[in-house]
Amino acid sequence: MPAEKEPRPVKSEQTRTLILETALRLFQERGYDKTTMRAVAKEAGVSVGNAYYYFDGKEHLIQGFYDRIGAGHQAAVREVLDRETDLQARLSGVLRAWLDVAEPYHEFAAQFFKNAADPQSPLSPFSPQSEHARRASIDIYREVLTGSRAKVPEELADVLPELMWLSQMGLVLYWVFDRSPGCERSRRLADRGAQLTARGVYLARFRVLRPLVREVHELFADFLPGMAQTAVARRKEP
Amino acid sequence: MPAEKEPRPVKSEQTRTLILETALRLFQERGYDKTTMRAVAKEAGVSVGNAYYYFDGKEHLIQGFYDRIGAGHQAAVREVLDRETDLQARLSGVLRAWLDVAEPYHEFAAQFFKNAADPQSPLSPFSPQSEHARRASIDIYREVLTGSRAKVPEELADVLPELMWLSQMGLVLYWVFDRSPGCERSRRLADRGAQLTARGVYLARFRVLRPLVREVHELFADFLPGMAQTAVARRKEP
Repeated sequence: MPAEKEPRPVKSEQTRTLILETALRLFQERGYDKTTMRAVAKEAGVSVGNAYYYFDGKEHLIQGFYDRIGAGHQAAVREVLDRETDLQARLSGVLRAWLDVAEPYHEFAAQFFKNAADPQSPLSPFSPQSEHARRASIDIYREVLTGSRAKVPEELADVLPELMWLSQMGLVLYWVFDRSPGCERSRRLADRGAQLTARGVYLARFRVLRPLVREVHELFADFLPGMAQTAVARRKEP
Repeated sequence: MPAEKEPRPVKSEQTRTLILETALRLFQERGYDKTTMRAVAKEAGVSVGNAYYYFDGKEHLIQGFYDRIGAGHQAAVREVLDRETDLQARLSGVLRAWLDVAEPYHEFAAQFFKNAADPQSPLSPFSPQSEHARRASIDIYREVLTGSRAKVPEELADVLPELMWLSQMGLVLYWVFDRSPGCERSRRLADRGAQLTARGVYLARFRVLRPLVREVHELFADFLPGMAQTAVARRKEP
């Protein structure tokens, strides 16, 4: 596979997209478990070897799907992050943007959930394989904080974006099962969650509270393997 | 069905248990989705009508299963609740007792999870149908608090047991996917969770924090329908 950041020729980018689109359609039609790489290749009109050139296996197709939703989210949040300085508004805008971007995949998500719910599955958002998508998403929450007027204690600057991402995972879990028209309930949950988080960040100015925030974060890092990896990778950066 | 609390004749209690045991075995062997009431009746050697006399349907078999685990848990917590007055020790004892009682069903739980994860499923621990099991479980956490030396602000006395029960649901979710030998990791998570909760209760003495605790609870009550029902039922009590 071409190294990251190196521009791929237009044609192979198109083939990659074609394979990914085809896979998503088949996952939706036949279910994730019953869809093989062979079937994806056949349906996309490429050779099996070609399909494996772009994606090492089914799990990688899902990572491709995560990356796609992530890229859509990154683009969609610009509108609110470039404009708003209020923490609660920034956060609820970012969460609502995620719901907008993910909407076309809502049906697929419910079907797919049982594979991704297992934290030890490569498909889990907490897995080492999801590291790339996860870090990009956590970076959005870093920007939610740094671009806001809220005062964030230095000692929580790295911890809070990861906790905010975890609360996004809570929203995603709720959304997967949300049957309200237009996922209206999930949107209201996004707003309420944003309100609560903003209040929590406000309260973090009280020193007595900070150890609790750190401990909650440590608990997640210790028990969700991917989270710890993200934290380690972050510390190693220049 | 006989009214609750009215003693059932020994024989019919045996039949009920037989049907429940059979159903649990078939769920495990064939999967929940593929097991019919008819198959349960046949395998248990009773008529279909008789099976429906005891359980109105498959969902009710699961409620029977929840009630059974709940009863086992209630019995198992006595040892620690009658002895300990330290909040953290009481809580970690209660969580560990749950893991002990549920252990024989660990394999079944993973298989069954995809049905119970949907909050709108009658099988969800948040469903109206699970109300009975849920309230009994929340009562255990009420006793965890009231029997401890911890000072609990009056305004949080009803809210904290429900939040503690919610954190048990978090532990259950973790346990479902825990593949460590003897579910060792879940046991450690129980201890860490207890430590964190005890610290949270300690911090609730600071008035500035209490609205946050209430708001977290309100958020769950508003978005998990069963939780609200539990709160309403509680308020109506003498």
